[in-house]
Amino acid sequence: MVDRRCVDNVRMLIVDAVQQAKAGHPGMALGMAEVGYHLYRHVMRFNPENPKWFNRDRFVLSAGHGCLLQYVCLHLAGFSSVQIEDLKHLCKLGSRTPGHPENVVTEGIEVTTGPLGQGVANAVGLALAEAHLAARFNKPDAVIVDHYTYCIMGDGCAMEGISHEAASLAAHWKLNKLILIYDDNHTTIDGDTTLAFSEDISARFKALGWNIITVDDIYNNIGSFKRAVLSASTETGRPTFIKVKTLIGKLSRKEGTPKAHHGTFDADDVKEMRKKVNWEDREPFHVIPMVYREMQIRRQYGEKIEKDWYSALSYYQSKYPQEAVEFKTLLNGGLLSGWENALPEWSTYDLVDATRGYSEKCLNNLAKVLPGLIGGSADLASSNKAYLHDYEDFITPTSPWGRNIRYGVREHSMAGISNGIALHGSGLIPFAATFLIFSDYMKNSIRLSALSHAGVIYIMTHDSIGLGEDGPTHQPVEQLAGLRAIPRLLVFRPGDGNETAGAYRVAVANRDTPSLIALSRQKLTANLEGTSASAVERGGYIVSDNSEANMPEIILIGTGSELCLCEGSAMKLREEGRRVRVVSLVCWLLFDRQPRDYKELVLPSRVTKRVSVEAGSPQGWRQYVGAEGVVIGVGEFGASGAYLDTFKKFGFTEENITRMAKSLLYN
Amino acid sequence: MVDRRCVDNVRMLIVDAVQQAKAGHPGMALGMAEVGYHLYRHVMRFNPENPKWFNRDRFVLSAGHGCLLQYVCLHLAGFSSVQIEDLKHLCKLGSRTPGHPENVVTEGIEVTTGPLGQGVANAVGLALAEAHLAARFNKPDAVIVDHYTYCIMGDGCAMEGISHEAASLAAHWKLNKLILIYDDNHTTIDGDTTLAFSEDISARFKALGWNIITVDDIYNNIGSFKRAVLSASTETGRPTFIKVKTLIGKLSRKEGTPKAHHGTFDADDVKEMRKKVNWEDREPFHVIPMVYREMQIRRQYGEKIEKDWYSALSYYQSKYPQEAVEFKTLLNGGLLSGWENALPEWSTYDLVDATRGYSEKCLNNLAKVLPGLIGGSADLASSNKAYLHDYEDFITPTSPWGRNIRYGVREHSMAGISNGIALHGSGLIPFAATFLIFSDYMKNSIRLSALSHAGVIYIMTHDSIGLGEDGPTHQPVEQLAGLRAIPRLLVFRPGDGNETAGAYRVAVANRDTPSLIALSRQKLTANLEGTSASAVERGGYIVSDNSEANMPEIILIGTGSELCLCEGSAMKLREEGRRVRVVSLVCWLLFDRQPRDYKELVLPSRVTKRVSVEAGSPQGWRQYVGAEGVVIGVGEFGASGAYLDTFKKFGFTEENITRMAKSLLYN
Repeated sequence: MVDRRCVDNVRMLIVDAVQQAKAGHPGMALGMAEVGYHLYRHVMRFNPENPKWFNRDRFVLSAGHGCLLQYVCLHLAGFSSVQIEDLKHLCKLGSRTPGHPENVVTEGIEVTTGPLGQGVANAVGLALAEAHLAARFNKPDAVIVDHYTYCIMGDGCAMEGISHEAASLAAHWKLNKLILIYDDNHTTIDGDTTLAFSEDISARFKALGWNIITVDDIYNNIGSFKRAVLSASTETGRPTFIKVKTLIGKLSRKEGTPKAHHGTFDADDVKEMRKKVNWEDREPFHVIPMVYREMQIRRQYGEKIEKDWYSALSYYQSKYPQEAVEFKTLLNGGLLSGWENALPEWSTYDLVDATRGYSEKCLNNLAKVLPGLIGGSADLASSNKAYLHDYEDFITPTSPWGRNIRYGVREHSMAGISNGIALHGSGLIPFAATFLIFSDYMKNSIRLSALSHAGVIYIMTHDSIGLGEDGPTHQPVEQLAGLRAIPRLLVFRPGDGNETAGAYRVAVANRDTPSLIALSRQKLTANLEGTSASAVERGGYIVSDNSEANMPEIILIGTGSELCLCEGSAMKLREEGRRVRVVSLVCWLLFDRQPRDYKELVLPSRVTKRVSVEAGSPQGWRQYVGAEGVVIGVGEFGASGAYLDTFKKFGFTEENITRMAKSLLYN
Repeated sequence: MVDRRCVDNVRMLIVDAVQQAKAGHPGMALGMAEVGYHLYRHVMRFNPENPKWFNRDRFVLSAGHGCLLQYVCLHLAGFSSVQIEDLKHLCKLGSRTPGHPENVVTEGIEVTTGPLGQGVANAVGLALAEAHLAARFNKPDAVIVDHYTYCIMGDGCAMEGISHEAASLAAHWKLNKLILIYDDNHTTIDGDTTLAFSEDISARFKALGWNIITVDDIYNNIGSFKRAVLSASTETGRPTFIKVKTLIGKLSRKEGTPKAHHGTFDADDVKEMRKKVNWEDREPFHVIPMVYREMQIRRQYGEKIEKDWYSALSYYQSKYPQEAVEFKTLLNGGLLSGWENALPEWSTYDLVDATRGYSEKCLNNLAKVLPGLIGGSADLASSNKAYLHDYEDFITPTSPWGRNIRYGVREHSMAGISNGIALHGSGLIPFAATFLIFSDYMKNSIRLSALSHAGVIYIMTHDSIGLGEDGPTHQPVEQLAGLRAIPRLLVFRPGDGNETAGAYRVAVANRDTPSLIALSRQKLTANLEGTSASAVERGGYIVSDNSEANMPEIILIGTGSELCLCEGSAMKLREEGRRVRVVSLVCWLLFDRQPRDYKELVLPSRVTKRVSVEAGSPQGWRQYVGAEGVVIGVGEFGASGAYLDTFKKFGFTEENITRMAKSLLYN
C-alpha cells in the first residue's frame, strides 16, 4: 500500500514535468513506474550521499528517452543532483535534466543513453568489469567487489543489432549478475510492435543462453516482479532476462498507444489521471511526506552498506595488503606515477615495422604497469596485434581475471561494452581493436565515448589503402575525416615507433577522453630521427627542416605511413638545394588546441607553399595547407592490389610528392 | 561421381589461385566448395550469357572474403566475366577478381560484400524485392516474377548485429524464397568459435520465425544438402536457414584450423592436396573437360529458362497489357520521361514548413509517377515524414504489394536491405529514413551504397542541434562531415521547399548513385525568392546578391535551415549599404564537380571575405571560405534545450552572423 502510493506519486511527477516542459517522453516512464520505483526503493544498493561509491549496483536505462522516470527516482531516492527544481526544468538549456540521460550532467546517471541498444552494451561492460574485478580481488573471507548491474531496455533496444551482439556476449561470458529488464509494452513510435517485430524474444534470449523470467501483471502483482528479481539474483551461470508486460503511458487516456510515447497530455487527461490516483487537490510537483519517509529509510540503508563495505575493505587491507594496494591503485584511476616510462623507445637503427607492430609493443609494455589495462579485438587480435601476451583470456569460470577480451565479430557492441567498462569508474582502461574501416560499425558508440567521457582506447589497424589486396571494401578512405569530426575524440595517426608510443602516452593519460590510434598494416621504411613520443602531445610539430630562421620554402605535412614518404621527398628536394620542412600532424585536435604562437612556429603563415600527404580523404586538409597548397589524398574508393601498386596508383610515392612540391616551388 | 570430380577441380583452382596471388582467403572457399558448386551447377536458375536476366536467382556471398569460390564457380558456370586469366590475377590491381567481390567490377556478382553481415541484409532486400514485385505483377495464369535468393553466411556474419536485424525482418516479412546457408565451420580468425560464440544459433533463428534445416555431413553425403535445398524451396511462410557443418580449409593440412582462413599454403601441403584428389600431374589452373561439359549443360538450361520466361512475358503482355506496361517501365529503370514534373513548387507566399515537411510532399508526389518508389523508416515514419500515404504497408500475406516498409528500430539493416532492393535491378527506387544522427548506425551500409552503385535515397531528418530538446545524444554535429567524405555519395542539405524538390530531382535521376537528404525538424522562416529546384544540380549557386559585376564585398554561404539566416543577415547588411552575396552550398560534391569558371562565378577568388553558416562540424568548410573567412559551425556536442535557445547558444542567429560579417568587413 505504501509502495502503491509512492508509485502514484512517481507517475504524478512524471506527468507534471512533461506538462511543464511541453516536451519529453512520458510513455515509457509511466509504464515502468513500478519497476523504477521498486528498483530504487527496494532492490538496488547505493548510497545517494556518495553516488560514486565503488560497490554500488549499477543501473542503465537503455531506453534513454524514458529518463524522466530515472530523474524522478533519483530525486526520491535522495540524490542531490535532481531536485524538484530540476524536474521543473526538464529539457531546458543548461538544466540537469536533459532530454536523454547524460552521466556528465547528472550525478547518479552511470552512462549516457538515448541511441537505442547502446545501454544494453554498456550494461554488459559494467557487469564484465564487476565480474573481472571480483575474480581478481575477492577472497573467500573478504568480498570487496560485489554488485549487480540492472538495465532496462525497450522494444527499440530489443530490435537493434548492438543489443543482440551484447546479449550474445553476456551469455557467453556467463555474466550472472547482469539483470536485463525488458519493458514489453508492445508499442513503438510507429505503432504496435507487430508492425515490425514478430519474434519470440524469450526463446531468442534462451537460445543465447540467458535465464528467462516473465512478469505478466506487474500493475496488480508487484510481488511477481519482486520474486523475479530475487530469483535472478540467485543465478550463478547465466545473465537474467526479465520480461515485464507493461502498458505504455499507463494511467493516461493514451495508455497502450504509440501516442503516449512522447509529448504532453490534454488538460482533461491530466485531470482524469489525477482523479484516478486521488491527487486532485495537489499542486503540481507535489511529493507526499510518506514518499520522502520511505526514501529516508533507503538513504540510511545506503549509508550503512557503504560503511559496511569500508569495514570489509579495512579487513581486506590488513589481511591482503598486496592485493589491496593494486585495488586502491585502480580505484584511484589506475595510473601510478612513472607509468609512461614503460613505453618503448625506438632509435633510427632499430628494425622497422608496421605501426601496428609498434603498437603491440607499447600495449604489452603498458599492460605490466597499468593494472587496469584490459581489452580485445573483434576477432582480429592477431591482425590488430592487440593482445596482451602475458595475460589470460577473460573466460568464465576458467579465468575471469584474464585481461584479454574476445569480442567475436561484433564491433558495435565491442565499443559499447568498452564504454561500460570505462564508466565503471574502477580504473579499468579498456582498449578495443579492429580494422579502421570497421570504425564505421561502431561510429555511434565511439561518439558516445566522447560525449560521456569514457576513456576508451581504440586501436584501429589497416588504416589506409596501404592494406592492399583486401580491396575497397576494407580500405578506409573517409574514416579518418569522419572520426576527426567527432568532438573531443583524439584521433592519432602515428608515423613511426616513437610517435606510436607518444599516442599511447596521451591516450592513457587522458582518462576521460577517448582516443583512436590509426595504425598501418604495412611495414614502414624508417624510424625517423626527428620524431619523438613527447612531441605527440602537441598534435603537430617539425620533424625536420634545413632552413634557417623559420623560413622554409615549402612545408610537407604528413601523417602515419606517409610521414616517411614526406621525409624521403624532402631529402631529394634538399639535395637540389631547397629549404624544406617536414611536419607531422599526428593529431589534429591537439594541434588545433595549441597556442597561436606555437602553431605559427610550426606552420608559419608566410609559407604558403605546402603539401599535405595522407592516404585518406582530402576533407579538412585545406585548413592546414591553405588556399595555395596541394592536398595529396584519396578522393575515391581504393582498389584491390598489392600495397605498393595501390600506393602508386593513388600518388603515394616519393616521386609524386616531389613532383607536386616542385609544381609549387617552380610556380 | 561427376559432381565429386568437379568439386575436386573447384578446390584445385582455389588452391592454384591463392598460390599464384600469394594472397586471398582459401579457407571458406575450400570448405564450401560442395555448396558453391552444387548451387551453380544444379540449383540456381540463371543464364550466364545474360547475367542481368531479370528473373534469375540471386546469390549473395555474405562471407565475401570467400569470393574465390564464387569466382571459380562463375568461371565454370560460363560467365564470361571470369576467365582462367582472371583467376590468375586474383587481388591484382585492375583485375576482375578483387580481394572481395564487387558487383561493379565483375558481372555475375550481385552485390558488393566483405564487411561481415552486410550480405545477409542485402539478400533480405533482394528477396523483399522479389516478393513485392511478385505480389504486384504475377497472375494465377502468368507468373513473371519468380526467383529465389540464396545467401551464404559464415560465423562472422552470424555474430554481427546487422545480420540479426535482417534475419528478424526476413521472418517477420515471411520471405519464404530466401534461403540462407550458414557455413558452420566453427572457426574464426582468432580461433575456434567457442572463443566468443556459444549460442544455439538454430534455436535463435527458430525464435525469429525461420525454417531450420541441418546438414551434418556434406562431404560424404551431398544428397543431404540437395534435399535441404529442395525442402527449403517448398516453404511457403518462412525463410529457410540451412546449417551446413563444414571444415575450413578442407583438404589442406590446415583443415579445421584458423590458419586456413587466409594466406597461401606450403608447397608440401599443395602437393599433398593434389595427391589426395589425383591431380598430381596437372598444370596449375587446369580444368578437366568433364567440368566444362557439365557446365555446358547448365548453360543450355540457362538459355532455355530465359527463353521460357520471355514467352511467359509475351503472354503476360497480351493478356495484361496495362500491368505489362508498368512492369516494363520498372525493368527499364523506372523513370518515365517527365517524372520530374510531379515535384511540387513553392512560392515565397506559401506557408513555411520544416524541410522534412517539404520532403513529405515531394516523396508523396513522386510515388504517383515512380512505380518503383518503395521504402520506409526505422520506426520514425511520422517524425521523418517518410510515408507514402496513398499506399499500403508491405505485409505478407496481407499486402506484399504495399510500398511502405516498416523496418522497426533497425537502421543498419534498413540500409543494407535498401542496397539489396536497389541492386535487384528492377527499377525499384528504395528510400530509407531515420534521424540524421543514426546515420552513424548505418555508416558502413551507406558507404557500400556508394561503392556498389546502389541508388538508395536516404532521408535523414532532425539534421542539426535545431532538433532541440532531445539533446546531444540525438543532435547530429559531425555527421554531415563524415558523410560528405564518403566518395560518390551525394549529400544534400536543402534550405527550403524548392531546394528540397531539387535534391529529390537529382537523387531520383541518378539511379546508380546514392543520395542523402538532410532535413530539418524545425520550421524554417521563409521560402526564398532566389532558390530553385533546378539550381540544386550544380551543388552551389547564388541565391541573392545586391552587387554589380560580380563584385560583392562579402559572401555568406549557408546550407539547410541556416540559409534563411544568411538571407536575413544579408538584408540587414545591405540596409547598411553593403554589397552582399548569399550562396547556397546545398551539395558540396556537385559543386566541386562544376567547371572552374562556374565555381569562380559563384565564389570569385578575389572576394576573400566569406562567412559559412552551417549548424554542424566546421570540418571541410575552410575549402570554401578560404584562409581569411569565418566558419560558423558547431565544434562541440550540442545541448538539450528549446530549438531557439540551442541555436542562440551556438551562434546561429542573424545577429551573430551579421556581427561576424562585420568583423570581416571592418577589418
